[in-house]
Amino acid sequence: MTPAQTLEPLLTWTGERLERGIRIEVDAHGRIEAVGRAPGAARADGASAPAGPLARHALLPGFVDAHSHAFQRGLRGVGEVFPEGAGSFWTWRQGMYALVEQMTPERMFDLASSTFRELRAAGVTSLGEFHYLHHADAEQLDFAFDEALLAAARAVGLRLVLLETYYQTGGIGKPLEPAQRRFATPDPATYWAQMERLERLLDPATQSLGAVVHSVRAAPPEALAALHAEARARDLVFHMHLEEQRVEIEDCLAAYGCTPLELVLKHCAVDAAFTAVHATHSRPQDLERLLERGAGVCLCPTTEANLGDGIADVPAMLAHGERVSIGSDSNARIDFLEELRWMELVQRLARERRGVCSDAVGDVGRRLLDAGTRAGARALGLDVGRIEPGAWADFVAIDTGAPALAGCTDETLLAATLLGADGRVVAGTCVGGAWSGLDGGAA
Amino acid sequence: MTPAQTLEPLLTWTGERLERGIRIEVDAHGRIEAVGRAPGAARADGASAPAGPLARHALLPGFVDAHSHAFQRGLRGVGEVFPEGAGSFWTWRQGMYALVEQMTPERMFDLASSTFRELRAAGVTSLGEFHYLHHADAEQLDFAFDEALLAAARAVGLRLVLLETYYQTGGIGKPLEPAQRRFATPDPATYWAQMERLERLLDPATQSLGAVVHSVRAAPPEALAALHAEARARDLVFHMHLEEQRVEIEDCLAAYGCTPLELVLKHCAVDAAFTAVHATHSRPQDLERLLERGAGVCLCPTTEANLGDGIADVPAMLAHGERVSIGSDSNARIDFLEELRWMELVQRLARERRGVCSDAVGDVGRRLLDAGTRAGARALGLDVGRIEPGAWADFVAIDTGAPALAGCTDETLLAATLLGADGRVVAGTCVGGAWSGLDGGAA
Repeated sequence: MTPAQTLEPLLTWTGERLERGIRIEVDAHGRIEAVGRAPGAARADGASAPAGPLARHALLPGFVDAHSHAFQRGLRGVGEVFPEGAGSFWTWRQGMYALVEQMTPERMFDLASSTFRELRAAGVTSLGEFHYLHHADAEQLDFAFDEALLAAARAVGLRLVLLETYYQTGGIGKPLEPAQRRFATPDPATYWAQMERLERLLDPATQSLGAVVHSVRAAPPEALAALHAEARARDLVFHMHLEEQRVEIEDCLAAYGCTPLELVLKHCAVDAAFTAVHATHSRPQDLERLLERGAGVCLCPTTEANLGDGIADVPAMLAHGERVSIGSDSNARIDFLEELRWMELVQRLARERRGVCSDAVGDVGRRLLDAGTRAGARALGLDVGRIEPGAWADFVAIDTGAPALAGCTDETLLAATLLGADGRVVAGTCVGGAWSGLDGGAA
Repeated sequence: MTPAQTLEPLLTWTGERLERGIRIEVDAHGRIEAVGRAPGAARADGASAPAGPLARHALLPGFVDAHSHAFQRGLRGVGEVFPEGAGSFWTWRQGMYALVEQMTPERMFDLASSTFRELRAAGVTSLGEFHYLHHADAEQLDFAFDEALLAAARAVGLRLVLLETYYQTGGIGKPLEPAQRRFATPDPATYWAQMERLERLLDPATQSLGAVVHSVRAAPPEALAALHAEARARDLVFHMHLEEQRVEIEDCLAAYGCTPLELVLKHCAVDAAFTAVHATHSRPQDLERLLERGAGVCLCPTTEANLGDGIADVPAMLAHGERVSIGSDSNARIDFLEELRWMELVQRLARERRGVCSDAVGDVGRRLLDAGTRAGARALGLDVGRIEPGAWADFVAIDTGAPALAGCTDETLLAATLLGADGRVVAGTCVGGAWSGLDGGAA
């Protein structure tokens, strides 16, 4: 419980634009109670500057980071020398597995808390942690790292969706490699037993669960089908790595005679609760079928670039509306504004035109903000991403006085923030009414 | 003149690696006098932590930004709505011309000083300002904005190479458009008269001149040939926008029967003092001929992405060694670490492999740092970009205690800084012995 509070930012995101003279009431449970005109702003110009802690701030919905592996933050700067001339996703994975083998619950807690702190300072208020590194002792299947993550999120005050990940095989039809044994869930029954245990450990106001099969590499189709069906019966969102690397598609074609997306569409009743992470190399017809079912795609711009994944067909995804969410993935770089910006900039480079990720009225800023808020909320099944009564009081306060925003008008501020700034413009964040960085609700 | 000073950073860039236990002597003229082992560091482990203001800092050569249009900072966040569905470089240029028409000397000074301050805070100590917006009164050819730039750089303490730009025609064989009249230099004689006037206005310790023809659009071949020959006779570096957009190549082929690079190679004795800015769409054979002459290329990663230019053949450029410098160009985004990182990341996305911009031993961090220091120094004809006796004492101090660098070792710090951090890790910079942000030489 936090005290009820009244927020009067200089500018507030209405879902359409930044507006002056809006007052927001937050209740003691951390939800938005009311959004309306501030009394002093009844004048036609609407331009009276508020007093108080948000007097020079633009209030946006807190950013929703829909895909993270917090522990991979430990690889920042590691493996950036390529003596044989070229590196790949697969050589990078060897380095990641080396980190996995050294992991302890204490190190997981430390890595996760520092990652979560960096994310929150970058404006992220909700995180989907795609969590596959479970065991301190692979023999015992102890799931000790699951609890470390929940504790780290509570310590930082970050809203967490623990996307508990099922990992049974070390490749299609292959046993687990030694490092992968720390990821192991041997069967769906063990998975659901752990999910029920986790359910009892959650902070109900800020933590929830989602179901995940790591990839087509990590589970046979029967397990995938059973897990997806049960997840939907329990009303859980379902995420899966899909088609990030060409080799994954080739291996799947060789083993099953179909692409990973085709396999998923064949075995799962895919719906709007499904998120395909990456879909970098998806065939147009597969992607189209996925999107027609209402599913979303989570892009991870800085990680996909760092790993040399390739360039996805984002216009095809956006043709279906608000379907693209954003993840910080490996956390090799943490700045959510950089993630959002490069969703658009990579497309501009590849297509040699501007305004690729723009919405119905051609607005790039609005489209990118939606990807980082509403689409993420949808992917994680959270009632966040909008400043409206009933939603959680999750906000990011942008300092309009920051050097990177000097010279902006109310009309250019959002695009300047998304395309021209970084976490330095984030003055503070609020998760369920609890502020960090500044006390936006102070009298 | 600044007081002579002794620097003892935790880590110092030697040109090869970050090393502990190095002491740097800076003379009162702002040049490096000596670089050697710190007495306390004679122990074999070399790991004794220094005291003093750089006790937790890694000292790198100050970053060299080889291509900027400072006034375009005024466009940040502008023109990011595309109601007709798609924007281009050319529609962006209309917005830039609208800013040009409103320009006054005061506004140029204000825009340039805030741009220069942002750049310096991002670790940039030397800037190549590709300056084509000259006149407050286009009738008078007053070159009033040239002086505003020199004054702004002096106010911020940024080392400036004023890349004075020749702009005669509004397109191949076309008169100037109204906005372009503020760029005008009618003939080479007027240009050299202004260069001589500027020479007398420079601060000799921190300011110098370079010669520029804006593009093949802006000058007939005879003027290009004459200006380049005279520039080299005066030992000035020579820069030119080249082949950023496909239309420029098509127009040049239509008018002259050759590409812009062919035109330059035909009319100019290109040498190592030549920098082609962008070369995004250059034909392999043209690029090869340019590089064989010793010339360099300046890439502008965030601007080329923002404008949807396309993806250059960076491996072909790097095959000739340290030839790629980096510019912040439009300054729509200012963070030099983001520029450096995306030089590599864009290539990874396009080529679907990692380690594209790596040096002889496969080191990405070293290659990117060289692009942002030594290659920039070469492009601007400056004795900076290295921490060695005789060079200017231009440094950037990286705070190894910054959250983005938590967990780094001496070996991973450089790659983590370049691939995983932003200007927040820049604790201070030094230009010719004068510090900003922290006083690295304090006793």
